[in-house]
Amino acid sequence: MNRYVMTLRCPDQPGIVRAFAQGVSSLKGNIVDNNQFSDPDTDTFCMRTEFDSPADSSAVVRAELTQALGAFDPFLTVRDVSHRRRVLLMVSKFDHCLVDLLYRHRTGDLPIDIPVIVSNHPDLKPLADQAGIPFVLIPVTKDTKPEAEAKLLDLVTEHDVDLVVLARYMQVLSDDLCRKLAGRAINIHHSFLPGFKGAKPYHQAHARGVKLIGATAHYVTAELDEGPIIEQDVQRVNHARSADQMVALGRDVERAVLSRAVRRHAEDRVILVGARTVVFE
Amino acid sequence: MNRYVMTLRCPDQPGIVRAFAQGVSSLKGNIVDNNQFSDPDTDTFCMRTEFDSPADSSAVVRAELTQALGAFDPFLTVRDVSHRRRVLLMVSKFDHCLVDLLYRHRTGDLPIDIPVIVSNHPDLKPLADQAGIPFVLIPVTKDTKPEAEAKLLDLVTEHDVDLVVLARYMQVLSDDLCRKLAGRAINIHHSFLPGFKGAKPYHQAHARGVKLIGATAHYVTAELDEGPIIEQDVQRVNHARSADQMVALGRDVERAVLSRAVRRHAEDRVILVGARTVVFE
Amino acid sequence: MNRYVMTLRCPDQPGIVRAFAQGVSSLKGNIVDNNQFSDPDTDTFCMRTEFDSPADSSAVVRAELTQALGAFDPFLTVRDVSHRRRVLLMVSKFDHCLVDLLYRHRTGDLPIDIPVIVSNHPDLKPLADQAGIPFVLIPVTKDTKPEAEAKLLDLVTEHDVDLVVLARYMQVLSDDLCRKLAGRAINIHHSFLPGFKGAKPYHQAHARGVKLIGATAHYVTAELDEGPIIEQDVQRVNHARSADQMVALGRDVERAVLSRAVRRHAEDRVILVGARTVVFE
Amino acid sequence: MNRYVMTLRCPDQPGIVRAFAQGVSSLKGNIVDNNQFSDPDTDTFCMRTEFDSPADSSAVVRAELTQALGAFDPFLTVRDVSHRRRVLLMVSKFDHCLVDLLYRHRTGDLPIDIPVIVSNHPDLKPLADQAGIPFVLIPVTKDTKPEAEAKLLDLVTEHDVDLVVLARYMQVLSDDLCRKLAGRAINIHHSFLPGFKGAKPYHQAHARGVKLIGATAHYVTAELDEGPIIEQDVQRVNHARSADQMVALGRDVERAVLSRAVRRHAEDRVILVGARTVVFE
Repeated sequence: MNRYVMTLRCPDQPGIVRAFAQGVSSLKGNIVDNNQFSDPDTDTFCMRTEFDSPADSSAVVRAELTQALGAFDPFLTVRDVSHRRRVLLMVSKFDHCLVDLLYRHRTGDLPIDIPVIVSNHPDLKPLADQAGIPFVLIPVTKDTKPEAEAKLLDLVTEHDVDLVVLARYMQVLSDDLCRKLAGRAINIHHSFLPGFKGAKPYHQAHARGVKLIGATAHYVTAELDEGPIIEQDVQRVNHARSADQMVALGRDVERAVLSRAVRRHAEDRVILVGARTVVFE
Repeated sequence: MNRYVMTLRCPDQPGIVRAFAQGVSSLKGNIVDNNQFSDPDTDTFCMRTEFDSPADSSAVVRAELTQALGAFDPFLTVRDVSHRRRVLLMVSKFDHCLVDLLYRHRTGDLPIDIPVIVSNHPDLKPLADQAGIPFVLIPVTKDTKPEAEAKLLDLVTEHDVDLVVLARYMQVLSDDLCRKLAGRAINIHHSFLPGFKGAKPYHQAHARGVKLIGATAHYVTAELDEGPIIEQDVQRVNHARSADQMVALGRDVERAVLSRAVRRHAEDRVILVGARTVVFE
Repeated sequence: MNRYVMTLRCPDQPGIVRAFAQGVSSLKGNIVDNNQFSDPDTDTFCMRTEFDSPADSSAVVRAELTQALGAFDPFLTVRDVSHRRRVLLMVSKFDHCLVDLLYRHRTGDLPIDIPVIVSNHPDLKPLADQAGIPFVLIPVTKDTKPEAEAKLLDLVTEHDVDLVVLARYMQVLSDDLCRKLAGRAINIHHSFLPGFKGAKPYHQAHARGVKLIGATAHYVTAELDEGPIIEQDVQRVNHARSADQMVALGRDVERAVLSRAVRRHAEDRVILVGARTVVFE
Repeated sequence: MNRYVMTLRCPDQPGIVRAFAQGVSSLKGNIVDNNQFSDPDTDTFCMRTEFDSPADSSAVVRAELTQALGAFDPFLTVRDVSHRRRVLLMVSKFDHCLVDLLYRHRTGDLPIDIPVIVSNHPDLKPLADQAGIPFVLIPVTKDTKPEAEAKLLDLVTEHDVDLVVLARYMQVLSDDLCRKLAGRAINIHHSFLPGFKGAKPYHQAHARGVKLIGATAHYVTAELDEGPIIEQDVQRVNHARSADQMVALGRDVERAVLSRAVRRHAEDRVILVGARTVVFE
């Protein structure tokens, strides 16, 4: 038996679950986990299901489910659970998110493959070397940005990348690149969005005198720090914390939030509905 | 259209979802929320589903689903969502949980009916009066305990009670009563179980020097403070808190934990599997 | 022996603690709790101390400490701990914060006196009546606002009010009133500021798809939702929560955050330093 | 100017703060941070102070303060803040706590020196090598335990070790060693003590069906998992988590709790009072 995970998004109407159950039945499948949600704001039906089936490829499963569900015009993903999502990591100079993702990758805690790490600075190459993962330096200046982004897209294609993760990558992506990576690029912003967008959020937070600082993982969109939110978390601070101490404290929240967001995407638990995410846990 | 919520527990095997989907289809139903879980430790399949159907009573729905699913020998509950669970509250002298439950009941935040409040002390009668809910005083001594518990069971029958909530009721129930109320009596214990069972848990916690205090809502069983846990939460404390201040702080955690547990039970979100609970949120 | 609490704010320089300790010594005092903080951004020294002394009034204590510390040009407060802060509550139609504050007041959990409750609507009068606290209706229209605010200030004077608490009071105060109540009026805003200022923050939060909702208690200033923050907290939500459900969930965070802020102010634990607060816990 | 941190513990009585302030004055010192606590259960006075002084060594400072405070028979520690605590790490096969402590050490986030890492297994030597820290393998069997512990004590002496950290070290220390390291050895237990002492706490937690799992950092004492608690934290779990998944989730809590406890000890923020800790933050 193989285990498959399917996600489905389509306009809401009666009969979807029944049609799906019949598709699974045709595949001699046994459902082991199932979540669904009907979004009343957009009348969108979302479902995530894990099931075991003797079907020997995700292509076969996809074909069967596409037929069973075709009448509902679904957006459908199917993945053999043993086939891990391929993730390209982008970094600059801060290493805390990279170190954490590499550690979770090495221990098997995070079910992803990391075919390549990209950076606009050479500083973190030793970490990539230690992990035995190719490190590609792509410097970015105002003038070379289009060329740099083209190189990145080549790597995405070459390595069959499912997801790009900006692990404290300090360059803003062009609108064009954001569109090309829509729904498959995750950024970690070091504030509790929508508070403190843009640069130096901890210094903004310190100046405002907040009592909690936070981090937000979201899909990248052309509008800066406005993409659909996948995960957020906060940590308590008090008056005695300087802005620099907030930066240090914030590292723990950032790495925790980013790794949870990557895990959810990698396990097909996130479905985009308009400007928001449905996250099945 | 009426909305129904169904819960199901049965030995795990293929085909349950499909049979259920066909049952819902016979009822011309549309599923709006669905959760399921297969417990690997006990090979038990659990499901909770909300669906809309023109069927005009839960009896009709139950009959149809029993027929569709009969082969799986399920433990099945069906409720018309507009029919609220009937909850009997038991209290002694502490009022914080009672005040909170009555407030949530009054505002409609907690979807329950409260036909009667029972106490072994007269102190909280004014709160029942204010809420317009009958208050029955059943004093308990060592000698009168059997008689007192018989009176309680009479009230349970008379008021068609679905759930008994011990909202800081300070008497231990007899083994026999625990058995009779199995799965339909919830207690709030003022510690993070299994730490600090029994009497004066905050004083135990203070003596041990813990850095977090907690509360636990669980189904009542004959073994004291050992019943299946529904919900727990904690609150940070430090060395400066006296045992009495922990008692005061703990009230907030207790009332929050108990109201969440009652809500989950009242919304049919809790399924008992052996000594543990499956909670669908 | 009487217990006094002193707070002090002055430009930072050596010798303050020593001078203070000598002042306490002159009062035959014994320090039981002490906190201090030097703010590097503004070079401000802040201190809060509780001490026991046979001195028989806060006037005597104040005179002695003013003399001992005069060279440092301090902003000084002294309170006999048994003399509770007098709090005027302002409400409109939402009752959750009022109910919580009244409960904590009644049980002695919150060490304040509440001489009067003011509202621009009659709806919550029954709660004031139940608590035996005078309820003053001051309707506000665009035209009557100056007159209404004058009445409020009269009540502040008449009842010797130390603190005004806007417990979901739905009128914006005039700039002039904000200035007159500077540092002694607390508002609860139903979002995690600085996110979602202004109207309908939960609906804004829902539209943005946040994964945590929050509440913020802050001193009132002329600039809306920009006053110094005293306390914040958050609660996890997911995609399945409608904006209305967020409103319901948010009530628990709001009442918790507001009662913690009021307690801190009432216990002289909050010192204003520029646009931020120092909170000694 | 040099910065010093002093901690003091003595029987509570009037005049301590005044005497201390005079001592600091003799040292031409300026207090920058100060915390104190009088424990009513044991009538013990605790204080932690940071101050700047031109005194050129902690020996000078200690001598002056010992003289100023001698009448109170204090237990006194004095440290030049630039002199970091020396920490010996002990590990077995699990690497998550070690990886986290080494990362925080490398980035300067954790103000400690790590002169040596000790293990009863060779598995984690590569991590020590990468960090450039000597790794000493001391295998332990029932028969060699006394000899192994003697070797460890030699290393403690040789490397002038202030603190021993059991970072998921899987051997129980002898009563004798516990006594010798009293107040200077920290263990991380992978449960929310006092729940689930001893072996396989996550499996115990799973069997009990708890809704939160936790970790506890405590000083080591002869009585297993009973030492004074320094820090605890928890993480929410639900029915769907297997015991093995709890183990994985728990790693994040364990490393966070242990690093916070080590930081507090390293910054002289923990004072032992009987079986409990006073933690100044």
